[in-house]
Amino acid sequence: MAEATRRRLAERGLTKGDVLEVARIAGIMAAKRTSELVPLCHPIPLDAVEIEFELIDADQVGISAEARTQARTGVEMEALTAASVAALTIYDMCKAIDRGITIENIQLEAKSGGKSGDFRRSP
Amino acid sequence: MAEATRRRLAERGLTKGDVLEVARIAGIMAAKRTSELVPLCHPIPLDAVEIEFELIDADQVGISAEARTQARTGVEMEALTAASVAALTIYDMCKAIDRGITIENIQLEAKSGGKSGDFRRSP
Amino acid sequence: MAEATRRRLAERGLTKGDVLEVARIAGIMAAKRTSELVPLCHPIPLDAVEIEFELIDADQVGISAEARTQARTGVEMEALTAASVAALTIYDMCKAIDRGITIENIQLEAKSGGKSGDFRRSP
Amino acid sequence: MAEATRRRLAERGLTKGDVLEVARIAGIMAAKRTSELVPLCHPIPLDAVEIEFELIDADQVGISAEARTQARTGVEMEALTAASVAALTIYDMCKAIDRGITIENIQLEAKSGGKSGDFRRSP
Amino acid sequence: MAEATRRRLAERGLTKGDVLEVARIAGIMAAKRTSELVPLCHPIPLDAVEIEFELIDADQVGISAEARTQARTGVEMEALTAASVAALTIYDMCKAIDRGITIENIQLEAKSGGKSGDFRRSP
Amino acid sequence: MAEATRRRLAERGLTKGDVLEVARIAGIMAAKRTSELVPLCHPIPLDAVEIEFELIDADQVGISAEARTQARTGVEMEALTAASVAALTIYDMCKAIDRGITIENIQLEAKSGGKSGDFRRSP
Repeated sequence: MAEATRRRLAERGLTKGDVLEVARIAGIMAAKRTSELVPLCHPIPLDAVEIEFELIDADQVGISAEARTQARTGVEMEALTAASVAALTIYDMCKAIDRGITIENIQLEAKSGGKSGDFRRSP
Repeated sequence: MAEATRRRLAERGLTKGDVLEVARIAGIMAAKRTSELVPLCHPIPLDAVEIEFELIDADQVGISAEARTQARTGVEMEALTAASVAALTIYDMCKAIDRGITIENIQLEAKSGGKSGDFRRSP
Repeated sequence: MAEATRRRLAERGLTKGDVLEVARIAGIMAAKRTSELVPLCHPIPLDAVEIEFELIDADQVGISAEARTQARTGVEMEALTAASVAALTIYDMCKAIDRGITIENIQLEAKSGGKSGDFRRSP
Repeated sequence: MAEATRRRLAERGLTKGDVLEVARIAGIMAAKRTSELVPLCHPIPLDAVEIEFELIDADQVGISAEARTQARTGVEMEALTAASVAALTIYDMCKAIDRGITIENIQLEAKSGGKSGDFRRSP
Repeated sequence: MAEATRRRLAERGLTKGDVLEVARIAGIMAAKRTSELVPLCHPIPLDAVEIEFELIDADQVGISAEARTQARTGVEMEALTAASVAALTIYDMCKAIDRGITIENIQLEAKSGGKSGDFRRSP
Repeated sequence: MAEATRRRLAERGLTKGDVLEVARIAGIMAAKRTSELVPLCHPIPLDAVEIEFELIDADQVGISAEARTQARTGVEMEALTAASVAALTIYDMCKAIDRGITIENIQLEAKSGGKSGDFRRSP
């Protein structure tokens, strides 16, 4: 995003509310509805979803989402959906001042458990 | 995505179904629910949502989504949501063979009409 | 349905509640969500949905659903969805005593207005 | 449906997309939301939903839906909902050329497991 | 509510339908969607929700809702949501004749099981 | 609520997040889904929903919700739903330390426009 946008976001200076808190809630709520959005995704009783934001350089916001369950199926789709909707929410709340924001690199970083085994993205 | 994944996707060789057709439907359905996902987004009666896919290089799938309405408010969030969920659906249907797929550059290309004026991304 | 089922339904003698009233509410609520269920259906602001039941012969319940809107698009899908979900609800509430119930002949009887013109089913 | 409709559907000659693939996705997604539609239906973690289509005679499409779960409650409502919404989707996508299509005989064919015991429709 | 409203409600004399039966269904359906409404609420597979109404004095309707599950997490939010939406539904169906109705004292009466222990409201 | 709860809420000292901001978002999102919750409520394109909180005495939080639309139908149900779900969310986020919180007096304060005329609650 533009540096001016990131500055106002960090200072909570956007009129529509606390952008990152709204994005966090939006991401958590979207994670719970992943199986309604992604057609072949199983409904899974999530135990927890956590979303964290990090201010990177002068013009980026990093989003990390983590999902946990005790079900037999993986929950990477829940985490990716949480991150995507959190990013869309940031875009929505900043678009009045910065339409050029880009959402980049939504990807699985690491996964453990589940029948398909562990995964860790190679650097 | 890996070239092998893109090849199987293009040949409709994935066991879970026609990936791009499922992703297209998922994106259209998600666009209609944008205001349920993005907290401060207005509910808007969409007139049309169109999603197109393009095979780019040997290892990418391009997704373009377009939304139209006659309402006074813009529908860029609907188009961005459609593209995001279409991409998540492709990931979901390919993840059994390729967990490393990355969703890149979800961004507004162009917008016309609406009270905030026209927008065209500079190259 | 079996005659015994219809008899208990008519006498409001089923333990789960007033079957036809529950089915009526379920049908109305489903009509409002038609565009979430049928992928290429436009979201339409419904003005009214009405569902009526008729006891036919000794072993049938007739369901008629009517939807009205002032939008430019037709609402036959809303009426058909209302009737379908009302029927599924009757099945659900009677299935403990009669699993053999069949839902027959969900069809458009008549339509007026809309850009596609009027329709009346020929006898 | 009219024979001309069935012919175009079989040849994938309808402009709105691959009708049966869209109907399949719609049915699967509806099955996951059965408990939101049918008021007294329990929310059940579905393990699988499968929908198959069969071209019957010259003017019919057969739809069979199967649902599986490891929960204690039956999932016949999920299968019936999947079949109903798949049928409604076919109607929606063909209605521009054939408003007279009828949805017939939505019924439970067979069920095994669950506290209410097995069921097989008598011929 | 006004005594006249309560009288008509008790006599099922309101034109929009059987108010308490509609409110009961609305409450049950809302309970199943609690985790979609309350952001940090876990999705829980409810075993049962029961709603009962009691005519109190000449101008009140008492609503009691009870939720049960075998999950590890409590379901007081599901019961409170059921009661709230049942009350909102009564308001909606009576508002044409009585806009002054107040919803009072939505509260947890008792809870047993769950990791947080038992609770019983002190008189 | 208990004074200790109100104090921690005011100091943003609850571990689950900024309670009032989460409640505000929950209320706004619920308002947009009112017609899915209240069976006979029309789907209405909301123009705006605003929720404000006020710390009253030492043990209360006041919630006021306002909804606006240009549709012909009233939006008091949307405002009441917003307030109810905001209150439920506060309960949910404080219940670990205070199960005895009561939600009191959900009521329409004032309404203008709409075919049923203006309303202002008499003191």
